[in-house]
Amino acid sequence: MDSIGYYNGQVGRPEELRVPMLDRAMFFGDGCYEAAFVINGRALDLDDHIERFRNSMRFLRIEPDFTDEELADTLYACIARVDCAYAMAYWQISRATAPRGHCFPPAGTGPNLLITVDKKGFPDVLTPAAFITLEDTRYFHCNIKTLNLIPNVLANQAAKEAGAMEAIFVRPDGTVTEGSHTNVHILKDGVLRTHEDGSLILPGIAKKQMLACARALGIPVAEKAFTREEMQGADELFITGSATFLKRADKLDGRPVGGKDTALYERLAKAYSDRALALTGA
Amino acid sequence: MDSIGYYNGQVGRPEELRVPMLDRAMFFGDGCYEAAFVINGRALDLDDHIERFRNSMRFLRIEPDFTDEELADTLYACIARVDCAYAMAYWQISRATAPRGHCFPPAGTGPNLLITVDKKGFPDVLTPAAFITLEDTRYFHCNIKTLNLIPNVLANQAAKEAGAMEAIFVRPDGTVTEGSHTNVHILKDGVLRTHEDGSLILPGIAKKQMLACARALGIPVAEKAFTREEMQGADELFITGSATFLKRADKLDGRPVGGKDTALYERLAKAYSDRALALTGA
Repeated sequence: MDSIGYYNGQVGRPEELRVPMLDRAMFFGDGCYEAAFVINGRALDLDDHIERFRNSMRFLRIEPDFTDEELADTLYACIARVDCAYAMAYWQISRATAPRGHCFPPAGTGPNLLITVDKKGFPDVLTPAAFITLEDTRYFHCNIKTLNLIPNVLANQAAKEAGAMEAIFVRPDGTVTEGSHTNVHILKDGVLRTHEDGSLILPGIAKKQMLACARALGIPVAEKAFTREEMQGADELFITGSATFLKRADKLDGRPVGGKDTALYERLAKAYSDRALALTGA
Repeated sequence: MDSIGYYNGQVGRPEELRVPMLDRAMFFGDGCYEAAFVINGRALDLDDHIERFRNSMRFLRIEPDFTDEELADTLYACIARVDCAYAMAYWQISRATAPRGHCFPPAGTGPNLLITVDKKGFPDVLTPAAFITLEDTRYFHCNIKTLNLIPNVLANQAAKEAGAMEAIFVRPDGTVTEGSHTNVHILKDGVLRTHEDGSLILPGIAKKQMLACARALGIPVAEKAFTREEMQGADELFITGSATFLKRADKLDGRPVGGKDTALYERLAKAYSDRALALTGA
């Protein structure tokens, strides 16, 4: 056999195996992986790979339900089914299978272990190849709603564990960008401030409609990033999201925040809710 | 029913639906998504959501196999099965179902459309909540092998389309970091230069073992980042990876590169291969 797949004890041809739709890898890429070259049934530097795998799991706070030795045994059981001199063994763990939600699901849903082993040729290390360069723009596409949501998962979980509802991201220079799954805004002296669209935040639909409501109410809007200090000193601090609509804060990092222009916030929130109800015939 | 799931035409309870293990969402998070609030069977601002969904797909170069109208019809067919006043409709598209590989798979494997609709309460926009702040460290964890691999997928695909084998990432300040799925190194005046470990690159297993080989051969090693210019002027430029072992470049962005200390490179490459064979009894 040229390839084999494994998923939580189920073994078969990779193209025939099926997995639960609610595996969090599907929604969040909420997992980590390793791949090792295999020669004559032996995985090269397997201990190093397993050590790094442990480091990745620790960073992601994924609790494996197997020991290093059990993982190696499972890998080797898969490798043994592939009849070839050279192969790649790939394995990944995802946090859990659970209905979609940013926070970690309750304990007991267990991680998912997925393995593939595929026949390969021996690497040709002598023949040169062409390379290209690309500007390293990795990780600056916050305006794209990709499935690469691990930072959001971790931030949202941190909020939950701090007894909070949302985590607000702040860049190292002090600029407030957005929440872990919402946009964030302030009211100050009657003016609504919000981060301008661009690559650093998601252009929220709820944000857009909230701004339209604000303008209809005659509230001046400044689409200009604000700082952590401005957020701390705001009359009101609130978030918007498709599932949340609007939600204002009364505490920020354990200290009181906002509450100084609640009537204006509530007019805006009511306008948003009324619009939603009206548009949907409710 | 309080929730419904959909996957490429299959409909059922989300927790019972199963999907192909080789859906690229599983491996790369190689897709994008939207979620819209539903009130009395109507999705709020659905046109805006679908427009943004189109933008995300365009960025990712995922070709949907449905029109906006067909997507809306499919969403509403799912929404109609959930009997509640308020719900969230979530949908995602992933690029394809295919054996794992960074480049886009051949045309014809089609995208995968996944939908869930879940009963919700109406958002409480008046009761305040606690927030917290977190430093915005999103996307600087290149040392973690997470499944959030979209930038790597796109870079690797760009290399392929340029007739090249690998794409090398360069930070805006000109610092060379790593390849889309490899580490990158140079030889200059007999010294091996490679980016120091840290949050900007993956601590490669193949890199580590290659450096051990270099030291055993008496090649001086400098673990210190190098610039685009130093890479262009290197005696040899090469990559390491668990599947690639070592591979040197003869072209960089279409211009000749390296080829000035090939004997040393080949000694190192042979040492690496020999070690791999020896360790695995081959």
